[in-house]
Amino acid sequence: MRRWNGWGDESVAYALHDDALGFLAGRIGSGAPFADAPFDAACASLAPSRLQATGLPAHIALATDAPTRLRHALGQSLPDWLRLRYGRIGTAPDGVAFPESGEDVRILLDWAAARGVSLIAHGGGTSVAGHVTAQASPRPVLTVSLARLAGMLHLDREAQLATFGAGVFGPDLEAQLRAHGYVLGHYPQSFEYSTLGGWIATRSSGQQSLRYGRIEQLFAGGRVETPRGTLEIPPFPASAAGTDLREIVLGSEGRVGIITQATVRVTMAPEYEAFHAVFFASWADGARAARALAQSRPGLSLLRLSNPVETVTMLALAGHRRLVALLERWLRLRGCGDGKCMLLLGASGTRDGARAAMRTALGTCRQYRGVHVGRKLGEKWRQGRFRNVYLRNAAWQHGYAIDTVETAVDWPRVGATMDAVEAAAADALAQYGERVHAYTHLSHLYPQGASVYSTFVYRLAGDYEEDLARWRTLKNAVSQAIVASGGTISHQHGVGLDHAPWLEAEKGAGGMAAIRAVLRHFDPDGLLNPGKLVADGEAVR
Amino acid sequence: MRRWNGWGDESVAYALHDDALGFLAGRIGSGAPFADAPFDAACASLAPSRLQATGLPAHIALATDAPTRLRHALGQSLPDWLRLRYGRIGTAPDGVAFPESGEDVRILLDWAAARGVSLIAHGGGTSVAGHVTAQASPRPVLTVSLARLAGMLHLDREAQLATFGAGVFGPDLEAQLRAHGYVLGHYPQSFEYSTLGGWIATRSSGQQSLRYGRIEQLFAGGRVETPRGTLEIPPFPASAAGTDLREIVLGSEGRVGIITQATVRVTMAPEYEAFHAVFFASWADGARAARALAQSRPGLSLLRLSNPVETVTMLALAGHRRLVALLERWLRLRGCGDGKCMLLLGASGTRDGARAAMRTALGTCRQYRGVHVGRKLGEKWRQGRFRNVYLRNAAWQHGYAIDTVETAVDWPRVGATMDAVEAAAADALAQYGERVHAYTHLSHLYPQGASVYSTFVYRLAGDYEEDLARWRTLKNAVSQAIVASGGTISHQHGVGLDHAPWLEAEKGAGGMAAIRAVLRHFDPDGLLNPGKLVADGEAVR
Repeated sequence: MRRWNGWGDESVAYALHDDALGFLAGRIGSGAPFADAPFDAACASLAPSRLQATGLPAHIALATDAPTRLRHALGQSLPDWLRLRYGRIGTAPDGVAFPESGEDVRILLDWAAARGVSLIAHGGGTSVAGHVTAQASPRPVLTVSLARLAGMLHLDREAQLATFGAGVFGPDLEAQLRAHGYVLGHYPQSFEYSTLGGWIATRSSGQQSLRYGRIEQLFAGGRVETPRGTLEIPPFPASAAGTDLREIVLGSEGRVGIITQATVRVTMAPEYEAFHAVFFASWADGARAARALAQSRPGLSLLRLSNPVETVTMLALAGHRRLVALLERWLRLRGCGDGKCMLLLGASGTRDGARAAMRTALGTCRQYRGVHVGRKLGEKWRQGRFRNVYLRNAAWQHGYAIDTVETAVDWPRVGATMDAVEAAAADALAQYGERVHAYTHLSHLYPQGASVYSTFVYRLAGDYEEDLARWRTLKNAVSQAIVASGGTISHQHGVGLDHAPWLEAEKGAGGMAAIRAVLRHFDPDGLLNPGKLVADGEAVR
Repeated sequence: MRRWNGWGDESVAYALHDDALGFLAGRIGSGAPFADAPFDAACASLAPSRLQATGLPAHIALATDAPTRLRHALGQSLPDWLRLRYGRIGTAPDGVAFPESGEDVRILLDWAAARGVSLIAHGGGTSVAGHVTAQASPRPVLTVSLARLAGMLHLDREAQLATFGAGVFGPDLEAQLRAHGYVLGHYPQSFEYSTLGGWIATRSSGQQSLRYGRIEQLFAGGRVETPRGTLEIPPFPASAAGTDLREIVLGSEGRVGIITQATVRVTMAPEYEAFHAVFFASWADGARAARALAQSRPGLSLLRLSNPVETVTMLALAGHRRLVALLERWLRLRGCGDGKCMLLLGASGTRDGARAAMRTALGTCRQYRGVHVGRKLGEKWRQGRFRNVYLRNAAWQHGYAIDTVETAVDWPRVGATMDAVEAAAADALAQYGERVHAYTHLSHLYPQGASVYSTFVYRLAGDYEEDLARWRTLKNAVSQAIVASGGTISHQHGVGLDHAPWLEAEKGAGGMAAIRAVLRHFDPDGLLNPGKLVADGEAVR
């Protein structure tokens, strides 16, 4: 069963071995574990539902019981976790509806509009920015789960287009396509529980976007139920016919309407796939090689460069102490010592094409004195690519919080942005007398720049208010650093609640006014996911 | 000097040799040439300007003389040509302003808003859909030429980003980049006279978009002066921060604001480039091969498949009768007879990479019994790629009109769309007792489908009303065929005036309302390029 107060399935445990705990203790001190609030107590804390199904057709399930409301109340942001772990749920939706068709969603929208009920679209609830979090409101709040709109509706092999219900989870989508020999190729770290509709609504990017593109490139068309009626977007290969309506849906974060189905561009399943690791003596060498690879486009499917602290951390958490020690000794002999950085390279496609791409890429790495260590570490990364998220559960059990932020900047700003974000986090926690273990990787590489993805591990205080204050101070500091560095407030997580205050820095007053005008057009009464994306919430009117 | 009533520079003549004329006469009958209206008479026909520069800073040039107004009155659509050739100009702008900076454009916008003057942004005036055509209006109309905002303002080699004034012509942009070792790689057929700002405003696509992407992918950010103030869009490599403001500017066709500068993603100039030709026995074989190439993505820069009639036409117009006859005889022996289709393939990049891509691609062609004829025809196409447009001038001199339409559809619809469009054109002109020489190519190939680009050659009547009626009947018929086939009303030319009636078929009522809401937000008084993109013009309010 899915964890109600953490990541993933209860049956999956990610153990932090003693070496790893020793490593963290050396960096930031030992954590002090504390007990989580029990599920029943959290349920009991919810205010009574203000919703009744009056007027709603009987076939549309609307749950108002506390367990269902609790399980749909929050996402995976750190403040969401604090509320769950401490049992300080506060606001929860008044109910959860489970429509089974686009028509059901249409009915729900009309029903909600007639009654002044706010609606929060809910895919997998994996948002780390507060997208699905209900906020206190005089209006009743209904969360609309897309869980029952999850099937493949159509596959056109000739056009390589597939249509799915928007609530389909990543693994189910891929499994349905793989059965026919196709893949979508969209693998965000949240893959296990995030949904197609959620990817579109938040402009998601997958780990192999270098080959498959971001969700913007994969989303060909679809259907959206809005307060103004149904938006049906045909899947043209390309068009110059004015405004691209897909772009109004992408990144709309549930405020324009509820995506009920989407048509995506699929690809033949790769015949061959390989992940290699290369080490560089320094960040400067690694970043130069990464840029050369991104700009020369040898045709890879993955590039991922860890900075020195992340490289050390990955090796420390990997287990296999003796093997890692041997590797590090060997790398040191090849010039890759303390400041070394690991680059992962992936190639996917035909056997010949992918191998040729990897050969070309490894040749480029050699020009920057990269030390190729073969496929073992790459393969290990591939196996753990969706498991790493479970580390957050394990760290919590030992009294540690893990949070991440990410941005994208042009190449000339990459290094300075990384440094500024990590320093801002350290300064923020120093105010509480705490240290942070901060590390960074470039997760998505473009000819123009890269995403800069930083992870922060720090100790929990064991007190809700204190931990919320620590998080808020850290989040403000790193967000400020991102904006001051010229980065976007999000490259792949979206805006939600947590990034909304920083949006105007990049959109400008004119851009914000335009976004508000679009939201107001589709949702004049401000019923859809209030407060997300645009900070002033229901005051969007 | 640039032609005032046709395409391109007066010094460039494209001769139609006797064989070509015989070919056309056999297809649609001999044309009957007639005299063009003289420039002076066309100037004299203009109504007096209703504009005075009162209140405008002296440094901003505002021309109200008839020659300047005439030279900016119309684009390159067929109805525009009819007006020019017959001297039936009708409405022209009341003046043409030549701002020299973004600040000048800002001043012009504010000045026009205060006086209720409509503004038409003007790049190179190459629109084939009526984008720059002034319409009769109780308000004075000012065309804003971006000709003096044409320099490269910044080149960031590390980020491969270049910023230009929006009025830069294609060749000037490429020359400035080439001097530093870079290219943008955006080559629409209008390249010689179209501008960066125009490409963005109309969602242009270049001949080598397979490698470089459409303008949507190349446009990283920029500055737009709107009635609501300045929109400044930073050039992030990618972002998930809500609505992408670039997408509000792309395809806005001068109705959201005036683009004054744009930052584009550039690429190292290719070390090597080659164009090859392959013939297929039939359209079915050629289309299957083209789809296989688009879906297997060997890394080409160009794919262009001509249907049998276009293939015959290209060979007939090429000159070199004996060489062509030899080629055709040889092709016939290899199985490519009357129904043969020519596929052009281009590869660009590093010598090794481009050659490997071409090798892979030619291997795929062999699987569909493609007959490779080497580089000569490809090279000839490359040399003539921006010269073919001049054919329109030459045909006119012999009494023939040439018009084109284009769409994009999914692979399963490609063949039927092509047939429907060509048949609709034939039926339309049959109503006038005329034949049409119609031929088609797939100009841009995607894994999901292709653009379908049809050319129509037919006889002019030598009478303005009659020729306008023929064009209108033909245009309506082919547009109806496109929409009925499930195609977008434009893959690369944009909407303008001529395609506006067909936009709702693909956007739906809800989509149209959303587009109107965006226009209304930026331009509440409807001053910007009224009537374009959205059919109801100033009634957008």
